Amino acid sequence: MEPNRIVVIGGVACGPKAAARARRRDPNAEITIIERGELLSYAGCGMPYYIQGEIETADELMMTSAGGLRDAAFFKSVKAVNVMSRTLAESIDRNRKVVEIVSIETGEKNEVPYDKLVLATGADAVVPPFPGANLKGVFRLSHPYDAEGIKRAVADGCKEAAIIGAGLIGMEVAEALVTNGLCVTVIEMLPSVVPALLDPEVAAHLEKHIISKGVTVMTGTRVESIEGDDDTVSAVITDKGRVSAQLVLVAIGVKPNVKLAIDAGLEIGETGAIKVNEFLQTSDPSIYAGGDCVENVNRITGRPIYVPLGSTANRHGRVIGDNVTGGSSRFEGVLGTVVFKAFNFNVGRVGLSESDCKKQGIPYVTALVPGPDRAHYYPTVKPVILKLVAQAETGRVLGLQAVGPGDVVKRIDVAATAISFGANVRDLSSLDLGYAPPYSSAVDILQHAANVIDNKLVGLAKSYSPVEVKRRIDVGDDFVLLDVRTLREFEEMALRDKRVVHIPLGKLRERAAELPRDKEIITFCKVSLRGWEAQRILEGEGFTKVAFMEGGLAAWPYPLET
Amino acid sequence: MEPNRIVVIGGVACGPKAAARARRRDPNAEITIIERGELLSYAGCGMPYYIQGEIETADELMMTSAGGLRDAAFFKSVKAVNVMSRTLAESIDRNRKVVEIVSIETGEKNEVPYDKLVLATGADAVVPPFPGANLKGVFRLSHPYDAEGIKRAVADGCKEAAIIGAGLIGMEVAEALVTNGLCVTVIEMLPSVVPALLDPEVAAHLEKHIISKGVTVMTGTRVESIEGDDDTVSAVITDKGRVSAQLVLVAIGVKPNVKLAIDAGLEIGETGAIKVNEFLQTSDPSIYAGGDCVENVNRITGRPIYVPLGSTANRHGRVIGDNVTGGSSRFEGVLGTVVFKAFNFNVGRVGLSESDCKKQGIPYVTALVPGPDRAHYYPTVKPVILKLVAQAETGRVLGLQAVGPGDVVKRIDVAATAISFGANVRDLSSLDLGYAPPYSSAVDILQHAANVIDNKLVGLAKSYSPVEVKRRIDVGDDFVLLDVRTLREFEEMALRDKRVVHIPLGKLRERAAELPRDKEIITFCKVSLRGWEAQRILEGEGFTKVAFMEGGLAAWPYPLET
Repeated sequence: MEPNRIVVIGGVACGPKAAARARRRDPNAEITIIERGELLSYAGCGMPYYIQGEIETADELMMTSAGGLRDAAFFKSVKAVNVMSRTLAESIDRNRKVVEIVSIETGEKNEVPYDKLVLATGADAVVPPFPGANLKGVFRLSHPYDAEGIKRAVADGCKEAAIIGAGLIGMEVAEALVTNGLCVTVIEMLPSVVPALLDPEVAAHLEKHIISKGVTVMTGTRVESIEGDDDTVSAVITDKGRVSAQLVLVAIGVKPNVKLAIDAGLEIGETGAIKVNEFLQTSDPSIYAGGDCVENVNRITGRPIYVPLGSTANRHGRVIGDNVTGGSSRFEGVLGTVVFKAFNFNVGRVGLSESDCKKQGIPYVTALVPGPDRAHYYPTVKPVILKLVAQAETGRVLGLQAVGPGDVVKRIDVAATAISFGANVRDLSSLDLGYAPPYSSAVDILQHAANVIDNKLVGLAKSYSPVEVKRRIDVGDDFVLLDVRTLREFEEMALRDKRVVHIPLGKLRERAAELPRDKEIITFCKVSLRGWEAQRILEGEGFTKVAFMEGGLAAWPYPLET
Repeated sequence: MEPNRIVVIGGVACGPKAAARARRRDPNAEITIIERGELLSYAGCGMPYYIQGEIETADELMMTSAGGLRDAAFFKSVKAVNVMSRTLAESIDRNRKVVEIVSIETGEKNEVPYDKLVLATGADAVVPPFPGANLKGVFRLSHPYDAEGIKRAVADGCKEAAIIGAGLIGMEVAEALVTNGLCVTVIEMLPSVVPALLDPEVAAHLEKHIISKGVTVMTGTRVESIEGDDDTVSAVITDKGRVSAQLVLVAIGVKPNVKLAIDAGLEIGETGAIKVNEFLQTSDPSIYAGGDCVENVNRITGRPIYVPLGSTANRHGRVIGDNVTGGSSRFEGVLGTVVFKAFNFNVGRVGLSESDCKKQGIPYVTALVPGPDRAHYYPTVKPVILKLVAQAETGRVLGLQAVGPGDVVKRIDVAATAISFGANVRDLSSLDLGYAPPYSSAVDILQHAANVIDNKLVGLAKSYSPVEVKRRIDVGDDFVLLDVRTLREFEEMALRDKRVVHIPLGKLRERAAELPRDKEIITFCKVSLRGWEAQRILEGEGFTKVAFMEGGLAAWPYPLET
């Protein structure tokens, strides 16, 4: 039997993974990787840490965990995979099943025949046609060479940096540059940071944190042009003024590299990325695609979603490696899970946010819950804020957002797992999660959030988000804001507003008569555990218009008087 | 309508939780807690940290997260719950629906009528009738008073401690005492530490770690008696010799407090704890029970299991609070999830171990996988070792054990969630978990473990556990142990055995002819990623009897020559 000829276009993440998996399944296949660059299999997600200096050499991003360099020689000797680097795949002739290639060094053209073709062409940073976008000192971050460039600019003494786009990469690089002593301004067109990932009142806590670390944040700001002295950048010009900068990073997103696929007549999805079926086959059954160049299916909505990530690319690679060697593995879709670190904050999200639900017309209930990430008496305890989103009526868990210095990623992963199986909030609350004081509370904060939604669904708990309370204050609504914290807490820091009445929880039963029965009462405390207790106490005393403010002062994203 | 009279026996964890939940649901109920002790709602799980000094005052274990003391006055003013402390519930008259009580202070007897009764009587440490078990300086750890006593003994200058029982409490207190400068010996009857929780080859890594921290571990050792000078302990006498100790902790387990339930004629389960249905009702529908005095159902096997834990007790309390106020909440059972910290090791387990599967006759497949807990190039990376257990044929995930300095608890929680929904290893591998270098690898180690089992199930991967390899070495079997690490790694540290052949992975294809075709070849490397690659390479070269050793040298629990 003729060996199966597998050709992979793209040598990072999905491509090499598919090749390695195919090799393990089929020792006789002829496997070739075509890569336009020189570098293979680098860990692109590690680049911000390389810029920061936490990772010392770029080589570390290209090593296996055993310390071997994943270069062409490695692929040849260990995987028996032929790597053609510095080689451009120019076009695909689907009738003849060949890839037309050209050597970047020599310009020599050639053809590579395939039985199965894998497109792993990745994505590139989007750089809008700002005047000045080509000036020296304006970077994107798609490739280790970009990271090298930024590192050199820092070493050359840049003092001020502007980052266009407050997304994940923007946040990570802001930290890297501040750590290296630069003054950093992040410019974001939308009204809050990481707008594609977090709802505004959750993002507000992240924004406060990075500001506290010295980052200047300009949200709702449009970039007009990039200015230079001679050929070198000197400032970013925005609709809110000039931002002086000798280093500019454009980090507003990436777009999938689909030219080869389009030219070959393959179907492109509504997100602009290559459309694939559950076996990761394109519209041509001999051609598979994976990694940052394809769109995925959202496991919750069943709709296409474009979330390019190294973890997804690796899972794609394994599925493709199976399927190009006679297997029939399925890729089950994604949940839009994203986690990242920004200074001392851990940030994560999975599934649908409140904004996503609104956009898609899905009825929802949310819980905003601040609290300790482990037993509140354990010395290393740190706070986190969770926002859990569930479907109205069914209570099906739809999404989780989490921010704070504490362990948010564990909760994101548990939520991701639960969502994958269609869990509702009661299922979440019933989970037998690991409990010990160094790791969690007896009722983990995620399960507490599930309980809050359960209480809302059965009509026990009534609440407003801080956003809604703020809106009602701003429009001058008449209601009572009942602070049920202790006197000491109240004196230390409080919401100063004429609507505020202070009665400590322990006195509420005896002093309830002091409160008006005709006005709505919104209760709160530090995290609104006592606020919720107060709602129930007042209802027990016959008050009919009572709700608590979710998350209390800990989740209040606006300024407070101290 | 007459108010619903709810009486709760037991003022820690489940009891107060049930009372508080009932109050929130029913403002008019008459709720009473009967507690034999003085303290309410203390965080028993925090006691080892109090002994260690990480938590400074015992009061911290009795505070709410807002800093309020959860005493009788707190329950009265905030929850409108009547607490009768220092009061013994002597008997239950189920016909008349009254609890007969006696005041510990005054001896006065009384009756408390109930509509719904909640038994939350907890558990006590088992102290076998060793001669000398009543000597001064012999402790158990059930109550904050015990923790106080141990702390005082340490302050009084005890130099040597013996801990009888290498379970969770034994491990936690060993750390606490070593941190306070004591010489600690842990004595365990069974052949490995935490034998109820971990398989021996996983436990071996924990044992090595605590030994490296200065703990003396005596496994397979039977305590014969406890010896004293006058009335104070001086040594523990075992079948392997005398262990000098001025402080002895008996920590061989706990038994549920079921006397009241037995006397009342309530059904006791096969584990010796109170039997309850899914609504946590005892055999008397007016009497509910929860916390450490009841047995649970294992969600995997459907069989009774006794795993007393504060987290479970809290979940019980919520369900009972619902059901004694007209609700019909279900408790879904447990997975035997246990996590704990021992020095710098995080330890966890969920579901069934290999030993559990053997005992219960369940066909299984396992994967033993050491690896980094986050991107291997990220500076704070730490190792962990996972052992994943799945059902043979179906690949259904049955259990996970994890140990190491890295983040094991996140993986335990993800596994707990997946197991709850009947996930198989492919489901686990398909999860869209949070990925960023500070938190995980692009393929998380848990998903890698799932992939290993998947590879075994489809017949691609063939492997032996280190236990099996060691056994075959010990009985003198003839086979090749093929080390495929680099020369540098091989020279640094290796398995020295006449069966060992060293060929680096990169040379294996060209040097395969050096290996015998008639002998079995067992490949390995540091973690057996390369070992598994080597298995496939040799099979590609026509070798027919090849397997890799799971987990490589990192998971090898026996001594190595360096």
